[in-house]
Amino acid sequence: MASNGDDNCNVNANVWRFKGNGATSDAAAVTLRKLAFGMFKNCTMNSGKTILFPTPGEPSAHPNFRTCPEAEEAVAAAARSGMANSYAPSPGVFKARRAVADYLNGELPTKLKPEDVYITGGCNQAIEIVIDSLAGNPAANILLPRPGYPHYDARAVYSGLEIRKYDLLPESDWEIDLDGLEAAADENTVAMVIINPNNPCGNVYTYDHLNKFASIAPVITLGSISKGWVAPGWRVGWIAMNDPNGIFISTGVVQAIEDFLDLTPQPSFILQEALPDILEKTPKEFFDKKIKAMRRNVELSCERLKDIPCFFCPKKPESCSYLWLKLDTSMLDNIKNDFDFCTKLVSEESLILIPGVALGAENWVRISIGTDESVVEEIFDRLKGFYDRHAISKEAIKVNGHAINQIVVSVV
Amino acid sequence: MASNGDDNCNVNANVWRFKGNGATSDAAAVTLRKLAFGMFKNCTMNSGKTILFPTPGEPSAHPNFRTCPEAEEAVAAAARSGMANSYAPSPGVFKARRAVADYLNGELPTKLKPEDVYITGGCNQAIEIVIDSLAGNPAANILLPRPGYPHYDARAVYSGLEIRKYDLLPESDWEIDLDGLEAAADENTVAMVIINPNNPCGNVYTYDHLNKFASIAPVITLGSISKGWVAPGWRVGWIAMNDPNGIFISTGVVQAIEDFLDLTPQPSFILQEALPDILEKTPKEFFDKKIKAMRRNVELSCERLKDIPCFFCPKKPESCSYLWLKLDTSMLDNIKNDFDFCTKLVSEESLILIPGVALGAENWVRISIGTDESVVEEIFDRLKGFYDRHAISKEAIKVNGHAINQIVVSVV
Repeated sequence: MASNGDDNCNVNANVWRFKGNGATSDAAAVTLRKLAFGMFKNCTMNSGKTILFPTPGEPSAHPNFRTCPEAEEAVAAAARSGMANSYAPSPGVFKARRAVADYLNGELPTKLKPEDVYITGGCNQAIEIVIDSLAGNPAANILLPRPGYPHYDARAVYSGLEIRKYDLLPESDWEIDLDGLEAAADENTVAMVIINPNNPCGNVYTYDHLNKFASIAPVITLGSISKGWVAPGWRVGWIAMNDPNGIFISTGVVQAIEDFLDLTPQPSFILQEALPDILEKTPKEFFDKKIKAMRRNVELSCERLKDIPCFFCPKKPESCSYLWLKLDTSMLDNIKNDFDFCTKLVSEESLILIPGVALGAENWVRISIGTDESVVEEIFDRLKGFYDRHAISKEAIKVNGHAINQIVVSVV
Repeated sequence: MASNGDDNCNVNANVWRFKGNGATSDAAAVTLRKLAFGMFKNCTMNSGKTILFPTPGEPSAHPNFRTCPEAEEAVAAAARSGMANSYAPSPGVFKARRAVADYLNGELPTKLKPEDVYITGGCNQAIEIVIDSLAGNPAANILLPRPGYPHYDARAVYSGLEIRKYDLLPESDWEIDLDGLEAAADENTVAMVIINPNNPCGNVYTYDHLNKFASIAPVITLGSISKGWVAPGWRVGWIAMNDPNGIFISTGVVQAIEDFLDLTPQPSFILQEALPDILEKTPKEFFDKKIKAMRRNVELSCERLKDIPCFFCPKKPESCSYLWLKLDTSMLDNIKNDFDFCTKLVSEESLILIPGVALGAENWVRISIGTDESVVEEIFDRLKGFYDRHAISKEAIKVNGHAINQIVVSVV
């Protein structure tokens, strides 16, 4: 609004009554997007190398980690159908909700109905909607894993939910610290977030482990095609209410989710129209080929890591395209921590990795290896070059004798 | 979260500590989506007619109001390109930002740079981001038009901004009531929303009229391809910062918008990848043909309205696919108001129209006529049938003599 009828076109900001909402900055500061794309600013191009930001779905001439033609054709057909041009209903297009229910029901003892599913713009929007729908009580808290995917943290901060962390234990195949979990929970705990398969740790929880803490409560499952179909940019995902006893209805959570869906951006109708074909027509061979290539990349990475001893991998990833590595800064000269490591790596090698601090764990690094083998080789070539230049000399290691064995396996 | 370690699987909601966030319901209650899709529930199918919900982009065998093949092919090509699969940067894909800047610059004295543009999931998300970025001060208020598009109201409620209405005047070609505007503004006013071309009134403001109140303040322009390309379901739009003096930077509004973009769902990369071709390759003939068909529909509607005297149209729409009609309930038997009219219309004729109360004006009705001529005929056939059944008999009109001329042209 103008300056109270003041006719002078004053460019001094003090005459304006509006100002940016600072409340958003605290929440945005902890997003992966802010951090990852912020890293680009450190790229000096001094390396003479092209910028390498390994991330799922990046353009590539090689087909192993490119989404399948069946999915691409499903979207093209939806765009040309004339059936996906109008506004979609807020909970999602019915045929898409039914397709997701069918897709998930294969593994579920109690079957989902289409009405139990809401279509979202990827998993991030699913997080946003569910977190906001559970907030509202100023005393409420939510249990989040450490390390963990930071969009949960960002949206909890934004929605005013207190965050309490439970640890994942690298020495126990990244299982949940159950004692810590119990200590963190109290009567104001509204939800516990479980990321499975785990991002960033890469493990898959056993049924027995999940059964130790997750058998009583009703479950909201968030998912998307982002990683499975290597198409995170397409932005289509879902919320599924696994709630045979209707607890989410009686507590008003379903109503809150449906209200929020009326207020928040809808995923593109084109992607919703295409979703049934994406889920149903993708051949098994696509996933088989991708998993095989992924396994080769894991083995290749572990082999290459032997030459870069400042990294330690407590567990090979089982079902995740990320390597989650402990960084031992004591083996490096003038590298303060993971953030410093990643910042200097960008500047010197034009390689963008995610510092662990962005995922709640200092002195860890996340590397996306869901990409072509040649790119994985290039990642490790650059990491090796960086390590060789920054490694403490053998003399220094002798002086500090014990340095190499000082890798502390802890997520905090 | 489970019930404090209680091992009994109690289905009673009282044992659960979470509950749905009720704060969302007040905001969601005023959304058009909630109301329009809620109308479906009143459809009894007693009419024996198919449900008719005239809305832009509905599937149709006729080409006048179907988006152009060039736009469809742009999306199909983006889906097949492999260039739009990865995560997009939060502010939007650079080539899409540049294309929007070029598209808008044709009419602007001060040119936009690509960095002045953010890509959003349609205009609704643009509203969400801008309103939230201007909120934060509990005393702040925002000036919204009456009647007006209710997503502004919904998001202002959600963000805690006080809403103050200024009136649009049907007797003055829907121009803004400037005295009322001035009375509503004070030192806590952070923004004034201008919808131009106007939804629902259909008028376009003259330069002279805009100049009376909008020449001093910097402007944020929100837009999308939804109406122009008849593809609201595709969900791609933009925020453009028209701010030659950098006031949005110095007041922190740009920072707040960029923070919020990190927290909120991103539009599909496929649509962003396609946007330059959509904006640049759509032939002028597409718009010419659509405008011509629209003009025919306006004339047809005005002709048909002569047989349905409970409606009054103060101004033919100039650049909008909606008719905005005053409803005179005194000419109808047992119809309390616009909401009652629309509810009974759905039940008896399976025709869904938007009651004016959803847009802030009681006893008005909004009809979408951006659709095939045959559908417009069908809309008025059903309205005529409904009117004929509900019109007060000629005897009653004689008794109440003056009823026909009692149309009060006022938006409140």
